[in-house]
Amino acid sequence: MNILITGGAGFLGQQLIRALLDRGSLDAGAGAQPIGQIVCFDQVEGAIVDSRVRNVAGSIADPATTSALVGPGIQAIVHLAAVVSGTAEADFELGMRVNLDGTRHLLEACRLAGHRPRLLFSSSIAVFGGDLPPVVTDETTPTPQGSYGIQKLIGELLVQDYHRKGFIDGRAVRVPTVVVRPGTPNGAASGFASGIIREPLAGLPAVLPVDPATEMWVASPRAVVRMFLRAIELPETAWGWHRCVNLPGLVASMNEELAALRRVGGAAATALVRQEPDPRVIALVRTWAARFETRRALAMGFTADASFDDIVQAYVEDNPAAIRPPA
Amino acid sequence: MNILITGGAGFLGQQLIRALLDRGSLDAGAGAQPIGQIVCFDQVEGAIVDSRVRNVAGSIADPATTSALVGPGIQAIVHLAAVVSGTAEADFELGMRVNLDGTRHLLEACRLAGHRPRLLFSSSIAVFGGDLPPVVTDETTPTPQGSYGIQKLIGELLVQDYHRKGFIDGRAVRVPTVVVRPGTPNGAASGFASGIIREPLAGLPAVLPVDPATEMWVASPRAVVRMFLRAIELPETAWGWHRCVNLPGLVASMNEELAALRRVGGAAATALVRQEPDPRVIALVRTWAARFETRRALAMGFTADASFDDIVQAYVEDNPAAIRPPA
Repeated sequence: MNILITGGAGFLGQQLIRALLDRGSLDAGAGAQPIGQIVCFDQVEGAIVDSRVRNVAGSIADPATTSALVGPGIQAIVHLAAVVSGTAEADFELGMRVNLDGTRHLLEACRLAGHRPRLLFSSSIAVFGGDLPPVVTDETTPTPQGSYGIQKLIGELLVQDYHRKGFIDGRAVRVPTVVVRPGTPNGAASGFASGIIREPLAGLPAVLPVDPATEMWVASPRAVVRMFLRAIELPETAWGWHRCVNLPGLVASMNEELAALRRVGGAAATALVRQEPDPRVIALVRTWAARFETRRALAMGFTADASFDDIVQAYVEDNPAAIRPPA
Repeated sequence: MNILITGGAGFLGQQLIRALLDRGSLDAGAGAQPIGQIVCFDQVEGAIVDSRVRNVAGSIADPATTSALVGPGIQAIVHLAAVVSGTAEADFELGMRVNLDGTRHLLEACRLAGHRPRLLFSSSIAVFGGDLPPVVTDETTPTPQGSYGIQKLIGELLVQDYHRKGFIDGRAVRVPTVVVRPGTPNGAASGFASGIIREPLAGLPAVLPVDPATEMWVASPRAVVRMFLRAIELPETAWGWHRCVNLPGLVASMNEELAALRRVGGAAATALVRQEPDPRVIALVRTWAARFETRRALAMGFTADASFDDIVQAYVEDNPAAIRPPA
């Protein structure tokens, strides 16, 4: 069982690879098979050193590079590689090249390889936006308001058709906003939802650019990795016609996040969060969906975090080196 | 006022060009302007000879060719070029290259030209399919069941985002099945709906591959061209956020088509139609939407044909050379 993970050097990719190594096996349609090799593909080499991991650096936007990644020896693919929302909005060409062309190249590589690998595409709740119902359901029409959401929705449609044509066993999941995202701030417009937990716990100041009553649909990296694994391992028939599903999450207001932060880091931590409304961010966040009813995913066995306190607790456990008392 | 029409040598393109020449002017946002040049771009040269028409032959799938078509001198673009449904399904690579890449190249050419031309994209009701409500409304989620519908929906999403980013004044219309399509049968899976009128009126046999009770959402070439012109000329604000709209049409059952054929061509004409159920076509047609409620389009002033008899009458008037008594 060989697995290709694009965007594998990112924090979700690395966490997924660790989870796969810990399990030691994966069922991609032929029963649980021991993991032979995990190809970790990204712009930069991944950090995990393991005899079963092969780090490959390159650009997914280059068709020849991407084509070389997929051969009959690859049974499962998790396609995480993407330019994040803020970056895709700021650099239209880059977003199109990576998020649209990259996905297209990967699917073409699968088609040309001819062995119908199982492929999981990481989509996003950013496909929803604008004038939405109070609660987004499995029936809500995607109406992306930014280039990132447009590109993710196009990716879903391509997965849908490559699956229908029998070129892949395709599935796609719309991932909630991932909180708490470890490491340094990235170009994701939703980054503050992680920043107001991560930075204060590291003893650093953070900015909250939106109203504290702002709600978001969130899931922890642990929950997302667990749902990725389920998405890969579910039998093909569990998906039916529609190969994409909205993933469960939690509704978290920034007030709730700050309360959870206080429970873990005390008043010293919350004091590090400065409220500084940014009209540009507020305008963008206003178009996002915060409340979902994910019946289909729940019936398929996907599960969210139990509480926001659990999310913060998991972050603290998984990132001990990133926790420091306030300076 | 210079206008680029891709797929201009096709029957709709030619009819649109004739309508534009007849009018002599077009309003693409700066008031009605006399038409200077119409660039008719297609794989083959268009048949219309007029000092205002420049026929250009080439492949829209070639980025350099497409890029050269769009300069600051082009104020309006009607993007009709497409591989039709049956062909896109049979030749996946060709469909992707023309319908997806071609649209992408054209939009990129607009972006790089930098003058924000007005662009109308001809989409299709083929974006709807599968397990649909009894009546498709403006709120129904597109769920394309074939590569053609997927590619058209991706085109809509690209138009939506290129518009939002300010690269074009974009608009898109979901065209009903066009009946009666003149000329010879093409690769459209819905071709029989035209064939059972066109062929008998030319004294030729035709095959009806579906149950005569089968309904379709149809519009005549005249109505479609009229709606194209309206779609180009509507002020930008008339569209609002959503740049795509389902066009009005008529619900026509094949029985109703045959009755209209009898009224025009008599029993000799209907005798030329042989019922020969084709499970492959039946399976495909079953996934199509036949009944629509097009409130938004009606409010925007789009109008359908008055009756199926009118559709047949218009065909007879517009194609006198194609009407022959039965052999």
